[in-house]
Amino acid sequence: MSVLIVGSTALDSIKTPKAENPRLLGGSASHAAVAASFFSPVKLIGVVGEDFPKRYLQLYKRHRIDLQGLQMMPGKTFHWSGEYEANMNNRRTLLTELGVFETFTPTLPASHQKDPFVLLANIAPSLQHHVLNQMQRPKFVVADTMDLWLNIALPDLLKLLKRLDGFVLNDSEAHQLTSEDNVFAALKKIHKLGPKYVIIKKGSHGSILSGPGGFFICPAYPLHKVVDPTGAGDSFVGGMMGYLAAAPGVIDDNIRRAMIYGSVVASFCCEGFGLVRTTKLTRSKVKQRVKELERLTRFD
Amino acid sequence: MSVLIVGSTALDSIKTPKAENPRLLGGSASHAAVAASFFSPVKLIGVVGEDFPKRYLQLYKRHRIDLQGLQMMPGKTFHWSGEYEANMNNRRTLLTELGVFETFTPTLPASHQKDPFVLLANIAPSLQHHVLNQMQRPKFVVADTMDLWLNIALPDLLKLLKRLDGFVLNDSEAHQLTSEDNVFAALKKIHKLGPKYVIIKKGSHGSILSGPGGFFICPAYPLHKVVDPTGAGDSFVGGMMGYLAAAPGVIDDNIRRAMIYGSVVASFCCEGFGLVRTTKLTRSKVKQRVKELERLTRFD
Repeated sequence: MSVLIVGSTALDSIKTPKAENPRLLGGSASHAAVAASFFSPVKLIGVVGEDFPKRYLQLYKRHRIDLQGLQMMPGKTFHWSGEYEANMNNRRTLLTELGVFETFTPTLPASHQKDPFVLLANIAPSLQHHVLNQMQRPKFVVADTMDLWLNIALPDLLKLLKRLDGFVLNDSEAHQLTSEDNVFAALKKIHKLGPKYVIIKKGSHGSILSGPGGFFICPAYPLHKVVDPTGAGDSFVGGMMGYLAAAPGVIDDNIRRAMIYGSVVASFCCEGFGLVRTTKLTRSKVKQRVKELERLTRFD
Repeated sequence: MSVLIVGSTALDSIKTPKAENPRLLGGSASHAAVAASFFSPVKLIGVVGEDFPKRYLQLYKRHRIDLQGLQMMPGKTFHWSGEYEANMNNRRTLLTELGVFETFTPTLPASHQKDPFVLLANIAPSLQHHVLNQMQRPKFVVADTMDLWLNIALPDLLKLLKRLDGFVLNDSEAHQLTSEDNVFAALKKIHKLGPKYVIIKKGSHGSILSGPGGFFICPAYPLHKVVDPTGAGDSFVGGMMGYLAAAPGVIDDNIRRAMIYGSVVASFCCEGFGLVRTTKLTRSKVKQRVKELERLTRFD
C-alpha cells in the first residue's frame, strides 16, 4: 500500500563546526518521503517556489515519489537555515523564510484521498488538519510536530491529536507538552490527549513506543560520527510508515520492526548532509543494519 | 564464586524536591555489595566510624555480606550530602566529610586475596590500586569511578586502567576523559587506555558495552517515577558482577545478561531512598523485570 505524506518541502542551509552547505534539499516531507520510498510507493503533498532546483525534482522522481500533489507556485521555496554546535545535539535556527508555504492550502487529487497510510510530517497543525480533512477513512494516521507548533499553535495541535492513530515527538517536546520530566509519565499523559500509539524520539538514545502492546524500547544504530542530524527524525517516521504500509498483517505486529527500520534509515541520514547519504541507500544496506541492531540488543 | 568489593561505606543525607532523608546507609560499596548479594557471596572492604549505626551492620549481615574486611575506626563515618533538582538528573553535592576514609589503607585478610571477581567500586584510585595490589591473580577486575577522580587523581586513574579487565563510567565522565561527544568514539579511545570491556552508563537511557563481542545496547528498565537515583550506578555494576560471578561459562557469553540484571537492580534502587527499596528485593522480583525487559526490547 502507499503512504501519503504532507510536510515541508524546503531548501536547507546547514552549518556545522566542520562544514557549510547552502540550499540542500530538505524539509520534513522530503526526508520522510525518501525514507519511506525504500519500502512503499509514496505520494508527496507539498509546495515549492520558482527557485526550486530541477535536480531536486529529479531526485524525488528517482525514488518513484508521486509528485501530483507537489505544487509549484510563484515565489520562493521555504528556506531554513541553521547551525549545529560541536556536539551535534544543540542547534540554532538562523533564518526561516516561509516563502510559498505562507499561502499553501492544497487540494488533494481524487487519487490521493483514499490512501490508507497518512503521514502528517512536521508542518503547521492547521495544514495537517487541512490535508486530513480531505482523506477518506485512512487506516493509519501518524503526525510529527516540533516545538514551534507547541509554542504558537497549541490549540490546533491538541485538536489534531484527537484525530490521530499515532503521534511522534521528541523528548523535549514531550516535556513541553506535558510538564513531565519522566518519559513514561509523559507518554501516559499524551495518550489521554488522543493517540493510541505515542513515540518519543530521544536522538542518539533511540526512541520509546507506547501502544496497545505496551512499551517498546527502540535502539538507535551506533554511529561513530554524525555529519548532519537534520531530518533524522523525519527519516525515522518516514521509514517507519513506509515499512508499515508494505508489511502484511496488523499494525501491532509490525510497528516495532517498523521503528527499527525507521531508526536505521535515520542513522544513514545522519551520515551525510541533507539527503546526500539517504538517497544512496539500498534495501540491502538497510537490512544489514537491521541485522546488526538485532545482534547489538540480544541478551539471551 | 564470590565477589570482593571495595568502595565507600558511607552515610548519605539526600534531599530531593519532595523529601529529605538524613544519614541513610550509602556509599558505592554498600550499594554494589547489596546488589551483588542477590546473586553471589560478597566480601566487603571498607571502613566506618564509631557513629556507624548498628542497624546498618545488621543490614549487611542480612544480605550475608562478609564483613571481615569492614574496619571500624575511631572517628566519623564518611558522610555525603547532596540535593537533586526536580528532573532527578542534576545533583549538587552539599557536603563531603571523608572522616575515617582519610587514613584508610586496608590490609586484606588472607581469605580475601584469592577471590576471582573483584569490583573496585567508586573510591580514590589510589585505594583501588592498594586493594588490587593485594589480590592474587583475580579472574575479572572491574572498576567504577567518578568525575572527582578525573579532576584530582587522573594519573592514578590512568595507571589503574591498564590493570583492569573492565571499566565502568558514565557518559559525562567518558566525555571528560576522552574529549569525545560521541559515545562510540569515546569507547574506542578508552579501550586504548587499557580495559578490554568498557561500559558507559547513560542513566535512564541505559548503557552501552564495548567488548570483544562488539557493542551491546543495554536498556534501562522503564520507571514512571524516580524517588532517589543515588547509588543506581553502583547497584548496576554490583548486580552485574554478582551475576557474572555466579554464572557458569565465560565472561563473553554472560556479560550482556549480567548487565541486564544490573540494570534491573539499579531500577529498583531508584524507587526508594538509599537502599530502602533494594534491600527488599527478591530474586523472583528481579527475574520478573528481566523478563519484562526481554518483552520491551524484542522486535522479531
